[in-house]
Amino acid sequence: MALVVQKYGGSSVADADKIKNVARRAVAVKEGGNQVVLVVSAMGDTTDELIELANQVTDHPDDRELDVLLSTGEIVSSTLLAMALRSLGANAISLSGAQAGIRTDAVYSRARILGIDPHRISKELEKNKIVIVAGFQGTTEEMDITTLGRGGSDTTAVALAVGLGADRCEIYTDVDGVYTADPRLVPEAKRLDEIGYEEMLELASYGARVVHPRAVELGEVYRMPILVASSFSDKAGTLIHGGAPMEVGNKVRGIAHDVDVAKITIVGVPDKPGVAGAIFDPLARANISVDTIVQNASINKITDLTFTVAKGELAEAMKVIEPVVESIGARECVSDTKLAKVSVIGAGMQTAPGYAARMFSALYEEGINIELITTSEIRITCIIDEARAGDALRALHRAFELEKGV
Amino acid sequence: MALVVQKYGGSSVADADKIKNVARRAVAVKEGGNQVVLVVSAMGDTTDELIELANQVTDHPDDRELDVLLSTGEIVSSTLLAMALRSLGANAISLSGAQAGIRTDAVYSRARILGIDPHRISKELEKNKIVIVAGFQGTTEEMDITTLGRGGSDTTAVALAVGLGADRCEIYTDVDGVYTADPRLVPEAKRLDEIGYEEMLELASYGARVVHPRAVELGEVYRMPILVASSFSDKAGTLIHGGAPMEVGNKVRGIAHDVDVAKITIVGVPDKPGVAGAIFDPLARANISVDTIVQNASINKITDLTFTVAKGELAEAMKVIEPVVESIGARECVSDTKLAKVSVIGAGMQTAPGYAARMFSALYEEGINIELITTSEIRITCIIDEARAGDALRALHRAFELEKGV
Repeated sequence: MALVVQKYGGSSVADADKIKNVARRAVAVKEGGNQVVLVVSAMGDTTDELIELANQVTDHPDDRELDVLLSTGEIVSSTLLAMALRSLGANAISLSGAQAGIRTDAVYSRARILGIDPHRISKELEKNKIVIVAGFQGTTEEMDITTLGRGGSDTTAVALAVGLGADRCEIYTDVDGVYTADPRLVPEAKRLDEIGYEEMLELASYGARVVHPRAVELGEVYRMPILVASSFSDKAGTLIHGGAPMEVGNKVRGIAHDVDVAKITIVGVPDKPGVAGAIFDPLARANISVDTIVQNASINKITDLTFTVAKGELAEAMKVIEPVVESIGARECVSDTKLAKVSVIGAGMQTAPGYAARMFSALYEEGINIELITTSEIRITCIIDEARAGDALRALHRAFELEKGV
Repeated sequence: MALVVQKYGGSSVADADKIKNVARRAVAVKEGGNQVVLVVSAMGDTTDELIELANQVTDHPDDRELDVLLSTGEIVSSTLLAMALRSLGANAISLSGAQAGIRTDAVYSRARILGIDPHRISKELEKNKIVIVAGFQGTTEEMDITTLGRGGSDTTAVALAVGLGADRCEIYTDVDGVYTADPRLVPEAKRLDEIGYEEMLELASYGARVVHPRAVELGEVYRMPILVASSFSDKAGTLIHGGAPMEVGNKVRGIAHDVDVAKITIVGVPDKPGVAGAIFDPLARANISVDTIVQNASINKITDLTFTVAKGELAEAMKVIEPVVESIGARECVSDTKLAKVSVIGAGMQTAPGYAARMFSALYEEGINIELITTSEIRITCIIDEARAGDALRALHRAFELEKGV
């Protein structure tokens, strides 16, 4: 008997009929002789509606309270799914993140999972029940509710799969797998049957929006295979796992993009030891993720330093940075939000020359200016004008001939 | 420093502005030098909307799951109130029923409070916080969520006031106190400044709809004074307590009515020992509250037995009773839902004759037929045609001259 963890996203449980559809799918897996744990997101736009409600009450909702508020969205969908399963004759029970033993740190709105106490879920599975767990949430040691941040339900699913020793983790969403680029922008994009964790991590981090990067990270660390597929079809999906055959064929596996990019440039930074720490320590303490960092070569011991953050964190980042600008003797601090990232991704790129050049040429031929460049072992990323993101994506997809299959 | 527990009903927290209004009121009480615990209901029609959602998924929502679903309504309003308080500069924290230490039995959808563990609330009060508790809910020993049934937030408030040793409990709603009759039906009805627990219990049980009878019961057992007032005005409200001056003046304090009445008549019941038990034991086991019971004098050892239940429990009661009818050898079982109760209430009525006669005459003069009669020490109740409830109420209010003040 296999233990399967399935996660259904907000669009898969958006209304009563879709919830019944998920229930039927889960019953089929159970009747196939498996133990089943389901992780659900909030229905459709519930989370946004709850945030809107909080904003009606105050401009600055308290973090702790907002987490408790948002956690209700997943509790609602998990109870409805339990009811739907029971009406099909299945034995089912819903558990909140707290009841499911998901222990997190106390960083509200983006808590990290510290561990899984599988006691209660195991007890319910032994009673032959389908267990539904409210995604996206956990509790601190003091039993205060936390949320894991947007997309956190994916992380809940993989963490539970790991914590329960599941045979596989399946993430169901409204797309049928991972594509060589966003099919809404690149019609000729192709679905990948399989992809390595690291490649997927770059695709997800850089905006492929299919599965949350933290979930892929967790999967990689614990070697948990993750299937990404559609809850509305029976297509095969994409399996994210450790061993895609990487050494042959086209080394570029996909083109990712992300428009959630804000850029901060600190102008006239004195080029002396300790300055970078003075800038990035307070950001880290404020729990703001800094992405790309670029420092220009200094002229007369004065340089400019540029970094990017998520758009939603720009205001807080500026609040943290403005006093620092003064204290380090820099001239000023400017920001820009009309940006996008495009990335070419594939394991083994670094050992095969010419990919970067091909990328820059393709963008140049489209007349797209490159503002920042950053690379990793399996990725080359350019930051460009947000308005040109679609053009860039299509140009790169053509340049690397991804429409021919990968 | 006094400790005050205030409860705000659904209409008092129906939208963002009303929630801010409640926050301002609570801050004023806190600034008056008091410790403040707030208990909130779900916003406006939230509970009904959640029930509708469950009904879209299945005709028979599972009890346990429905309780978890409904409990989210009060969690939403309590977090929003905490945010509103914090935006006013007050230190505030919301707690779910589970976090607030409200322990119940496992009778889902109408759980009874077994005890209060005041540990967490006390800790937060010591930190000088206003504590907001989600009403209407608790947890079992196994940490499963339960709800207390409709109106349960009143019970939460009084139970917390008792468990915390509060100085008083204040129930805020959309009416400004307890009236001699429902002012929507009897325009000349007068507000009572104070009323005894037992009188209030009869008024509430018999449909005064201002405060839940279980809350008044609890208040009576632990002698906790309960103030009922409006959250939308500064009017004094009605104090429910032990010592209203009962021995002087008009002994009738109010006229109550209730249209949530269904009648079941078992026809042709053999009049022999054990029959009543055979009928009412299974109802009790199904947790159905039976109200009025009337058994006619038997003719030839055959009698009819009539009792009433809440309309919402009629279907389940009939399901329980139908097999019993056959097993005891009764002829049949019929039900009627087009009924209302009207009650004349006042301590000391039983020792002063003539009240019953005056009540029956007043109804007779209005041409209203009395279907059933039942009395207690402080109440006389008639069950009549639902369509005549308003007429009956006004006629009785006039007959007992309640418009002159009580």
